[in-house]
Amino acid sequence: MEFKKNDIETLINIITSRRDVRGNNFLNKDIEADKIELILKAAISAPSVGYSQPWEFIVIKDEKIKDEISKNFEIENAKAKEIFKDREIYKSLKLEGIKEAPVNIAVLYKHPNEPTIGMTSIKEMGEYSVVCAIQNMWLMARVLNIGVGWISILNEQKALKTIDAPKESKLIAYLALGYVDKFYDEPELKTVKWKSEKSFSECVSFR
Amino acid sequence: MEFKKNDIETLINIITSRRDVRGNNFLNKDIEADKIELILKAAISAPSVGYSQPWEFIVIKDEKIKDEISKNFEIENAKAKEIFKDREIYKSLKLEGIKEAPVNIAVLYKHPNEPTIGMTSIKEMGEYSVVCAIQNMWLMARVLNIGVGWISILNEQKALKTIDAPKESKLIAYLALGYVDKFYDEPELKTVKWKSEKSFSECVSFR
Repeated sequence: MEFKKNDIETLINIITSRRDVRGNNFLNKDIEADKIELILKAAISAPSVGYSQPWEFIVIKDEKIKDEISKNFEIENAKAKEIFKDREIYKSLKLEGIKEAPVNIAVLYKHPNEPTIGMTSIKEMGEYSVVCAIQNMWLMARVLNIGVGWISILNEQKALKTIDAPKESKLIAYLALGYVDKFYDEPELKTVKWKSEKSFSECVSFR
Repeated sequence: MEFKKNDIETLINIITSRRDVRGNNFLNKDIEADKIELILKAAISAPSVGYSQPWEFIVIKDEKIKDEISKNFEIENAKAKEIFKDREIYKSLKLEGIKEAPVNIAVLYKHPNEPTIGMTSIKEMGEYSVVCAIQNMWLMARVLNIGVGWISILNEQKALKTIDAPKESKLIAYLALGYVDKFYDEPELKTVKWKSEKSFSECVSFR
């Protein structure tokens, strides 16, 4: 397939308007099953090291699971508040939308049982494949006008137990998905001046 | 921005036609600077934990660096051939395009010097942000009809030294980029029956 100029513009628009969405922006509106399927199909079309496809996706609507994950977040975030006690604004940030989002998706990594092409020198490659899948999901959700938030302030082992994850899984991401009232124009942590944007030249060098 | 049905189709086409490209498919044709810039701008538009932007991209055209990285690959791949000695086909697979590709990009992770929002419980989040950037690059390259291969059969420390990486960087990916004669219809490791495709239901469950 040969892509054209307008396809480039479309992808730039999707990539640059994607945001991390939290509970204050999710709408109380369910996501259609065919849209969830499109998001998951984008995930499993991601590259994976040695074609290992080392991912598992658990789609969660169960309110009891969400409650427990939310409590897990609160405990971990209390510790984080202590770490950031010198920056008053931390406490006022809404950092997750576990219960506000109609759908949560836990994304797990399963270490392959056999040697995998491309993992013989760098062991983390399997986990990286799962993250590629997550970024595909995020972009597919965005083009469907669905917001995604990645919740990482969690105790991993407790979360795996809560979602009844298969043994020896690793939690790569816990995502909250839902329609939104709006997508912000820029990352919220930039808007509130938590950190400034790095320039292109700060991030890129040439050899 | 509100996306429409044809935008969804465009993104599906980009995601599903993206391939890992190796040396046998790269053309001997340089990549224009403005296209490299588009690819890198897609990278730095990725989500990053706590807006940490913990990435650094080193664009490499220097043939001496490519030679050294290529030797690094050969040494690591000799070990891999031993691991896969029971699967004859491994030796016949072309697994990289370091020297055939006009441009290589090393993607590095720099651990933030200060506490980072969202990294207080799960330490790997910074590296995962860099992988999100890589998947953005891969898709942007694809819509520009440029192929990308991810070379992971490398000794990381040696590679960092070769590219004169900033101290305390971690190598997340070493990418080879170039125009291609064609994009395969499916992953090569599927075509050669190295591994079969997992079904949707094998990867997805519901709670």
